Amino acid sequence: MAINPIYTASRRPEWDIEAMAQGLIAGDRGALSRSITLVESQRSADLSPAAALLERVAQLQKSALGRCFRLGITGNPGAGKSTLIEALGQQWVAQGHRVAVLAIDPSSTASHGSILGDKTRMESLARLPEAYIRPSPSSGTLGGIHAHSHEVLSLFEFEAAGFDRIMIETVGIGQNETSVQTVVDFTLLIALPGAGDEVQGLKRGVMEAADQIWVNKSDGDRITAAQQTKSQLAQVIGLFHREDGWTVPIQSGSAIEATSIALLLEALEKGFQWGIATGRTETRRKDQQTAIFQQQVQRGLWQLIEDDPKLLSHQKEIQEGRITPRKARLEFLRDFMAKYR
Amino acid sequence: MAINPIYTASRRPEWDIEAMAQGLIAGDRGALSRSITLVESQRSADLSPAAALLERVAQLQKSALGRCFRLGITGNPGAGKSTLIEALGQQWVAQGHRVAVLAIDPSSTASHGSILGDKTRMESLARLPEAYIRPSPSSGTLGGIHAHSHEVLSLFEFEAAGFDRIMIETVGIGQNETSVQTVVDFTLLIALPGAGDEVQGLKRGVMEAADQIWVNKSDGDRITAAQQTKSQLAQVIGLFHREDGWTVPIQSGSAIEATSIALLLEALEKGFQWGIATGRTETRRKDQQTAIFQQQVQRGLWQLIEDDPKLLSHQKEIQEGRITPRKARLEFLRDFMAKYR
Repeated sequence: MAINPIYTASRRPEWDIEAMAQGLIAGDRGALSRSITLVESQRSADLSPAAALLERVAQLQKSALGRCFRLGITGNPGAGKSTLIEALGQQWVAQGHRVAVLAIDPSSTASHGSILGDKTRMESLARLPEAYIRPSPSSGTLGGIHAHSHEVLSLFEFEAAGFDRIMIETVGIGQNETSVQTVVDFTLLIALPGAGDEVQGLKRGVMEAADQIWVNKSDGDRITAAQQTKSQLAQVIGLFHREDGWTVPIQSGSAIEATSIALLLEALEKGFQWGIATGRTETRRKDQQTAIFQQQVQRGLWQLIEDDPKLLSHQKEIQEGRITPRKARLEFLRDFMAKYR
Repeated sequence: MAINPIYTASRRPEWDIEAMAQGLIAGDRGALSRSITLVESQRSADLSPAAALLERVAQLQKSALGRCFRLGITGNPGAGKSTLIEALGQQWVAQGHRVAVLAIDPSSTASHGSILGDKTRMESLARLPEAYIRPSPSSGTLGGIHAHSHEVLSLFEFEAAGFDRIMIETVGIGQNETSVQTVVDFTLLIALPGAGDEVQGLKRGVMEAADQIWVNKSDGDRITAAQQTKSQLAQVIGLFHREDGWTVPIQSGSAIEATSIALLLEALEKGFQWGIATGRTETRRKDQQTAIFQQQVQRGLWQLIEDDPKLLSHQKEIQEGRITPRKARLEFLRDFMAKYR
């Protein structure tokens, strides 16, 4: 009997949800990697198993609040984010923490990573058994934040997987809806020493979102410039009104000096404690969950209708110049609404 | 008789579509500004009039292909995009062209503009009667590209409004779906002289999208560095395979030297002619229209359902931790599909 090609689909991996959840409990890296792959999958056949896994994890998981710290690292390209993440991660590991990093994947075509000199990034951190580095997939990303990043973080924090210090690297683009803020508890902005240019080059949205600022590469003859940048940043930050009453720490230092990294870490831990004590982290995580749901519904709706014959015929009319996109949109949605209501 | 508050909505401006279209034909700036405001409006009451205006314009408009050049200007913050746009615009006007610019609005809260020193940008260009500068609205933007930017461009190009050289400024973030490529014919990337750092800081997607590159601020003691940057860029660009056979020109110069701007303009005009001659511009504009339609449908779908009681109750369950966003999404979409099919 010939094999019906339809059934070749069954060659895809069978997801054993319970085994994956138990593997996560046991701290099995393989199970973690497979779980992330499932959760990030865009295939429609993977949606149900992914939902089941996340639901199971939510059942088994004790609250990560107050234990796990989700830190976003943002800044212009070239600010030294990777090096700083590596330095922070190594110190956290030395303090007994377990560190997971969702990093921008520099090898990916559509990525926001840079082109040269990135091959060896985070190698020393990656070698530590207490650390786990996952390149962020590029499709659907915006400033490095993937639609599923939030869910991946919940896998990292799964009680027994036990990562309690989590860093996400992003290119700062200052989009509220889709920025790093939608997935982290706290945001560290990396700036560079330099005159007005550096402050000018930072987008307002990115500065407003910063909970803490670090002027990086402040060593040797750049120390004076770093001091100036700090004053400028303090001035600008002072213009923003923060309803939560938090005072944004602005420090400078060098990722290659352990002492300055220790001071950075100390300030970050204070921010972590502040978020827990004031309830901001809890509120934020709840809001993030709602935002994720809305994003997922939007994407799901589109997947439901993208092959709709009426949609396709409108597209043809547009290509032929017989209708404007705007009018086609009105007509399509009117018909759609008539059907749905 | 008391005024029913519902009817206060009628106080909104009445859009006289035919008068606006005729005003556009007559080259009336006021009509152009009002038309753009209507097309950019997010209010549901404005959707039909906006569609009617765009449809009328499409009827009246002779093809702008081969006459109008839509140029995207991209580059990292601080690369000097505004100054260069101003220099290009002034030379184009001197050559008898009419120039419109869709600029990043630096004053807007959520904008991608920078914070300091931007108040006086493009003033000399703005003063010329042959030029029109429109700040891009920030809501819904991504790297400065607004959901309605493409439609605004069609208003600029309206036969009698007569802008034939159009520039759009964006922050390069390298998102294919939503980047400047979705609205322009040709993309000019602005880089800065400098060692590896500058090349490393440019995202791969942004480099791949560049049709032409300009190393800016190449004057005085930065000329040697600019030459090095050009070589590095040429190396990187050489790694990309371009199916269209176009060789990306890489030049350097200074926005404040008229002679170097003249060489830049010459190369740009060659690119414009190449796009027309090879049919790339025509194909691209068609594809852009389809993409706009799809984006608009996605946004419209969400507007249709965002107040759906089931959606809201799922959101409540998520907030209370009774369901994961992923499972809620599956349930909501399953119910939705059952209703729609």
